[in-house]
Amino acid sequence: MAQIRLQGPEVDLEEPTLIEGFPGLGLVGKIATDHFVRELDMRYYASVDCDGLPRIGAYRGGDRTARPPVRLYVSEEHDLFALQSDVPITSDAVNTVADCVTEWIVEAEATPIYLSGLPAEREGTPDLYGIGTGDAGETLEAHDIAIPPEDGVITGPTGAFLNRAAHRNYDSVGLVVESSPQFPDPEAASVLIEAGIAPIADLEIDVQDLLDRAEEIKAKREQFAQQMQQIGQEESSQAQPLRMYQ
Amino acid sequence: MAQIRLQGPEVDLEEPTLIEGFPGLGLVGKIATDHFVRELDMRYYASVDCDGLPRIGAYRGGDRTARPPVRLYVSEEHDLFALQSDVPITSDAVNTVADCVTEWIVEAEATPIYLSGLPAEREGTPDLYGIGTGDAGETLEAHDIAIPPEDGVITGPTGAFLNRAAHRNYDSVGLVVESSPQFPDPEAASVLIEAGIAPIADLEIDVQDLLDRAEEIKAKREQFAQQMQQIGQEESSQAQPLRMYQ
Amino acid sequence: MAQIRLQGPEVDLEEPTLIEGFPGLGLVGKIATDHFVRELDMRYYASVDCDGLPRIGAYRGGDRTARPPVRLYVSEEHDLFALQSDVPITSDAVNTVADCVTEWIVEAEATPIYLSGLPAEREGTPDLYGIGTGDAGETLEAHDIAIPPEDGVITGPTGAFLNRAAHRNYDSVGLVVESSPQFPDPEAASVLIEAGIAPIADLEIDVQDLLDRAEEIKAKREQFAQQMQQIGQEESSQAQPLRMYQ
Amino acid sequence: MAQIRLQGPEVDLEEPTLIEGFPGLGLVGKIATDHFVRELDMRYYASVDCDGLPRIGAYRGGDRTARPPVRLYVSEEHDLFALQSDVPITSDAVNTVADCVTEWIVEAEATPIYLSGLPAEREGTPDLYGIGTGDAGETLEAHDIAIPPEDGVITGPTGAFLNRAAHRNYDSVGLVVESSPQFPDPEAASVLIEAGIAPIADLEIDVQDLLDRAEEIKAKREQFAQQMQQIGQEESSQAQPLRMYQ
Amino acid sequence: MAQIRLQGPEVDLEEPTLIEGFPGLGLVGKIATDHFVRELDMRYYASVDCDGLPRIGAYRGGDRTARPPVRLYVSEEHDLFALQSDVPITSDAVNTVADCVTEWIVEAEATPIYLSGLPAEREGTPDLYGIGTGDAGETLEAHDIAIPPEDGVITGPTGAFLNRAAHRNYDSVGLVVESSPQFPDPEAASVLIEAGIAPIADLEIDVQDLLDRAEEIKAKREQFAQQMQQIGQEESSQAQPLRMYQ
Repeated sequence: MAQIRLQGPEVDLEEPTLIEGFPGLGLVGKIATDHFVRELDMRYYASVDCDGLPRIGAYRGGDRTARPPVRLYVSEEHDLFALQSDVPITSDAVNTVADCVTEWIVEAEATPIYLSGLPAEREGTPDLYGIGTGDAGETLEAHDIAIPPEDGVITGPTGAFLNRAAHRNYDSVGLVVESSPQFPDPEAASVLIEAGIAPIADLEIDVQDLLDRAEEIKAKREQFAQQMQQIGQEESSQAQPLRMYQ
Repeated sequence: MAQIRLQGPEVDLEEPTLIEGFPGLGLVGKIATDHFVRELDMRYYASVDCDGLPRIGAYRGGDRTARPPVRLYVSEEHDLFALQSDVPITSDAVNTVADCVTEWIVEAEATPIYLSGLPAEREGTPDLYGIGTGDAGETLEAHDIAIPPEDGVITGPTGAFLNRAAHRNYDSVGLVVESSPQFPDPEAASVLIEAGIAPIADLEIDVQDLLDRAEEIKAKREQFAQQMQQIGQEESSQAQPLRMYQ
Repeated sequence: MAQIRLQGPEVDLEEPTLIEGFPGLGLVGKIATDHFVRELDMRYYASVDCDGLPRIGAYRGGDRTARPPVRLYVSEEHDLFALQSDVPITSDAVNTVADCVTEWIVEAEATPIYLSGLPAEREGTPDLYGIGTGDAGETLEAHDIAIPPEDGVITGPTGAFLNRAAHRNYDSVGLVVESSPQFPDPEAASVLIEAGIAPIADLEIDVQDLLDRAEEIKAKREQFAQQMQQIGQEESSQAQPLRMYQ
Repeated sequence: MAQIRLQGPEVDLEEPTLIEGFPGLGLVGKIATDHFVRELDMRYYASVDCDGLPRIGAYRGGDRTARPPVRLYVSEEHDLFALQSDVPITSDAVNTVADCVTEWIVEAEATPIYLSGLPAEREGTPDLYGIGTGDAGETLEAHDIAIPPEDGVITGPTGAFLNRAAHRNYDSVGLVVESSPQFPDPEAASVLIEAGIAPIADLEIDVQDLLDRAEEIKAKREQFAQQMQQIGQEESSQAQPLRMYQ
Repeated sequence: MAQIRLQGPEVDLEEPTLIEGFPGLGLVGKIATDHFVRELDMRYYASVDCDGLPRIGAYRGGDRTARPPVRLYVSEEHDLFALQSDVPITSDAVNTVADCVTEWIVEAEATPIYLSGLPAEREGTPDLYGIGTGDAGETLEAHDIAIPPEDGVITGPTGAFLNRAAHRNYDSVGLVVESSPQFPDPEAASVLIEAGIAPIADLEIDVQDLLDRAEEIKAKREQFAQQMQQIGQEESSQAQPLRMYQ
């Protein structure tokens, strides 16, 4: 049985973009991806059942429908896919999930935007850096997204996705934003959205809501992070500076 | 050799319902399923030998027959199957058991009712919520079973069953009842039966017995829960609210 | 290479019985089986090399021959096989050993008698109960072996053997005797022999020796149990009452 | 690629003997085997690369050549093979190594002599016992090697080798010598050599050197044993008395 | 998909040399290899994706390109390959990585130089020893690289590489340098380069930079070592003296 399975009509998008939202440092990728799904009213498109993903049933308040915890959403109007996850990925499953989702991305001819936080004690607006594989560097230049100032590695599912893209040499964008290492960080997520995802995917989206509700989001996500730790050991995506002499 | 094997004559039921009774939070699903097996005098129909189930021999007082610990029962009169388990499922085996039993359910064209407790400190009658996959929402509407008021996830074997149904998109019902998180809860099981299973499966069944013997059941099940923990690590099904901002 | 391999001439028995003697609670099955092998002067018939059995070399004082630790013995005169083990089975290996030996039993068209202790603080003669699969109930009735008075489960290799027989629905007898939970119990083993195995297998055998040497056997087996724990984690067969409301 | 691979010209020996020298109790087998390799100036014959053996590079002082840690040596003049190991075998690998080396022994039509210590507090010369599989008993009788006085089991790689030989029923000799349970024991090794291996393999070899350098050997081997424990968990071959009533 | 994949034009080198730079004791191999990659301005040639390597994304400060953490570099001018790694290898992966990279080396007809530290408290210049497989001894003689004075074993990835070469009997050089057991050791790396790699590979390279920046390198590598420990359990290559009587 297919590991990624349509749950509605197929779509035919032109040069679609995919936003990846697995929970990672500061939950920045998940907060940003969830924001797109909600604001653009994206449609539930496919269930994702890669080996190693937790087999649990998820539901939303006010809705009777049980769904798998990792799902693809689509907006035909915006040529956009979003990979939404209600659960973190355990270390054991990072590789199989990256392989399985990568196959789908390559077949769908989508350009993925992988999202990661970089732990930082910051004041003011968090810095955003862009890295890439294949020819994605040009895209990042075109939108004036900064080059990382020091060496680094990205671990977790986001690191595995970038690793797959680098080894296979297809185009993918990696956006790295300074983020709180310990708490959900809606401000950092809003920078990802406004300065990174929206210009690259050629979308307009309001983030005022995220900023207004920052405290509420932090509190709820905090509970989420705690609950999820009970379900499985989290392999949290994050970028880390790699301060060594090469 | 077949993993689910007939132990008597085959039956040909019309649109049968299946009740799933793996031990979970408050033992609500097991208490409810055992009640049906006993009250409807259901017949031992098949032994279940999915990979990962404990290979032990079970017997009943006053009966010489040794049986596997997970079994299917049938009532032809009521177009009903029941999945009875004398043992909990370990975390390692949840996925293989869900796959194996799901294959049988799909072939038998049965509509499964999956049962889970939701931890709650309650006063008065526990609340009951219904979720579903495929077209099961209509059934729940027709019997006025409440929509869950907040986000949640269901883990354990029940969560895995719902996950399989959601990914494959076939009809299944999930009943979630508020339950004691620490003790066997015959009252919650009686709500599952009266307000959920009986109307959906179009059955009449008396639960007075369960309520009268609540203290006795609690005490015996308590011993059961303790014994079973010695046999293997339990992966207890339960629903959990998922309080996060989407 | 065959997992069970002849170590002498083949035999052609008529409706043979097999006694299983893996170490379990009170070592009752092993003491009983060893007693038959010695008293009936049974012949070393086959070596047993199922996956998961410890690969060690065993020898007897006064004999130069090295042998595998699990072996089949035969007495053509008594139409009897005995499965003797110098080692306990680890939990990991219980299923593979049960599968492997079961295949041989089915091919040999033997009726197995599986032996287990039931932990009890007793005074006087220990109680003996008989359970069975297939048509074995009739055999138990014919020899007036008692029906178990309460629910129970049998774990360990004996439980796995009964589970296989119950799922495949072939005839097998399970004898459960009250036994010391902590010490080797030659008295309980003698009840297994006299009131259970001997009448069912239609054999005459003296157990006076076992009773006379009870203290010596207890002491030696005690050492055995300790030594064996050093070799691998023991999965000890035992019956347990299952005091729950069904 | 072959797991045992020639590292020089092939030989054609007549009824060769093989001495096995994996580290075990008192290091008796290793000390004895190393002594033959050195005294008979045996030639490096094949590298041994069975699954589970540690993949490390070993070298000797005064020699540039890196070699695998487990190797076969040969002396054409003496119709002798020696299996030398610089490393102990982990428990996980005992079975695969025994299978892999056994295949080679059977193809080479060699008669293996397996060596093990038996823990003993002794005064004077350690006792030596001989056990065997196939027709090896006659060889032991011919050389007046004593029969073991009590039941026993041999564990570790030596036990696995004897187990394979017993199950397959080919000729092999097992020599068991009383040995210090905690320290390298060159005296016990010299008994193995003089009273066991040399007469059976029809060789003359001086052990005076071993006895003269006993203190030095003990000290160096002591360091070896400590170092090896850092590399992997040792599965040390040893014989153990099995004091139980059969 | 190929485990080692070209990331640029193929090259056709004549009798190329390969320097292996996995992190090990004192980081001597990595520091030396990184030095060649930088000083000779070697070109990124292939990504290495053997089973068991961590799937993370690595990037350099001032560069947008994300790459896998283990990579091959080439210098056509110098007939030189370098195997650079940003990560240590876990014990579980040592064998699969050694097999996978060895296949590539054999196909590329490259002569590998494997690098290892030998723990030593030293004063003055660290000693350097050379070992080898196949005909590499002649090369070492030709360049007056010392023979190891005592027995030893090399563990970790370097030990596994030498083990593969010894078992398959192809030419490879192992250079062992005395090194600090606890801290990054650029001085030892410079001895590896000047007295070992450069003469063998017939290269000229300045190491003054390494010596001038020794303190800085130690500090940065120190951080690296700490960070890497968080990613996975390191299997650090090292040589160890093996002080035993053979």
